[in-house]
Amino acid sequence: MRPAIVLFGDSITQLSFRPGGWGASLADTYSRKADVVLRGYGGYNTRWALFLLHHIFPLDSSKPPVATTIFFGANDAALAGRTSERQHVPVDEYKENLKKIVHHLKKCSPTMLIVLITPPPVDEEGRNEYAGSLYGKNARELPERTNEVTGTYAQQCVQLSDELGVGAIDIWSKMQETEGWQKKFLSDGLHLTPEGNAVVYQEVIRVFNGAWLCAEEMPHDFPSHSEIDESDPKKAFEQRCL
Amino acid sequence: MRPAIVLFGDSITQLSFRPGGWGASLADTYSRKADVVLRGYGGYNTRWALFLLHHIFPLDSSKPPVATTIFFGANDAALAGRTSERQHVPVDEYKENLKKIVHHLKKCSPTMLIVLITPPPVDEEGRNEYAGSLYGKNARELPERTNEVTGTYAQQCVQLSDELGVGAIDIWSKMQETEGWQKKFLSDGLHLTPEGNAVVYQEVIRVFNGAWLCAEEMPHDFPSHSEIDESDPKKAFEQRCL
Repeated sequence: MRPAIVLFGDSITQLSFRPGGWGASLADTYSRKADVVLRGYGGYNTRWALFLLHHIFPLDSSKPPVATTIFFGANDAALAGRTSERQHVPVDEYKENLKKIVHHLKKCSPTMLIVLITPPPVDEEGRNEYAGSLYGKNARELPERTNEVTGTYAQQCVQLSDELGVGAIDIWSKMQETEGWQKKFLSDGLHLTPEGNAVVYQEVIRVFNGAWLCAEEMPHDFPSHSEIDESDPKKAFEQRCL
Repeated sequence: MRPAIVLFGDSITQLSFRPGGWGASLADTYSRKADVVLRGYGGYNTRWALFLLHHIFPLDSSKPPVATTIFFGANDAALAGRTSERQHVPVDEYKENLKKIVHHLKKCSPTMLIVLITPPPVDEEGRNEYAGSLYGKNARELPERTNEVTGTYAQQCVQLSDELGVGAIDIWSKMQETEGWQKKFLSDGLHLTPEGNAVVYQEVIRVFNGAWLCAEEMPHDFPSHSEIDESDPKKAFEQRCL
């Protein structure tokens, strides 16, 4: 009955229904208007995400989502030769994989609103502190991710959105406009604080509103309780449901 | 692909994806296991909810929800002859309407886990303060809801769950076990604070765990990233997806 908005991504999507999370805030904003569907896969890179496409977005679906956010890259950008190497995907392949995801979604529904989100910036100091808190003296000495390298992934993501004519949110750049972004927006140098979640939420809403998916302009499902005539409730439901 | 858990109710359900909300917490807990579907209708009583049944829970659905929470009564218990009179439903009819909802859901799926939730307690002082903050001297002098009357609705809800053999959460009683529940759990004498939301969340999880719907025991959709062999990722997906 209601349109679906799918959030497809890695842990930053999977964790988006925690208190203050950007996914939960979207679900609240679109309450009674659209269903926000959580498809976040912690630890996944775009190479592994490709295996999920046909399952999550079957081409023969009679009701594909009206909008999808694609939010990968934080794991692709893990450095080769470092502790998170197994998640690493070269930047050219990352871009190619994102392209395959977008093409699949367009095949699924040519009218789907597709929004690519870049990985957030990386606070290397925060990552070190986090590794130290987990492993103490045994923590790796060299960073597994750097902000600079993640930035090259963000650039390719934005460039691809231009090439394909789909929406993009450069959260890597956006967050770094704010002083103190390292601790303000990131809890462990990589994942989002409630304030960081709020930035993602606001950016997604900005892009959705700029397209045709503005919650305020979408109809409620079913009459508002104030429209129901208490002496003849059936009337409001006949007008709005049939 | 994933099972659905539907939250069906009034504003206390509709608002459950705000920060700290019980719905968002459920979505987080069942992330990668079940979809939590928000079907909250602010201001609705059980009489009006009946009009939604065939739309939200069509009898011919090939994939009915695995579980549904039914959380009405806060509006039914608005007093006749007072400012919220239009929402009032007599307690016998409230029970009868709940019974119709449960019967419909059982017809929809005989295996569905159905959980009735009583209305929360009412803090009459909090309601007065809220009315005063909205209308000043023009606020109604007599309360539109009382805790005592709402308690009779809660009793009937619990009794019905016994009669029908479905789950029940007596949130009206549960909250009043905690000293200072009036301000601790209720923001305006009726709706829930984050702490009040946490009580609902914990109770729903307790009932779900007691049935077979324990998140920890449910399989992830798709392999965990740690199960994926980076040199042969296809293998993990063939084992888990086909």
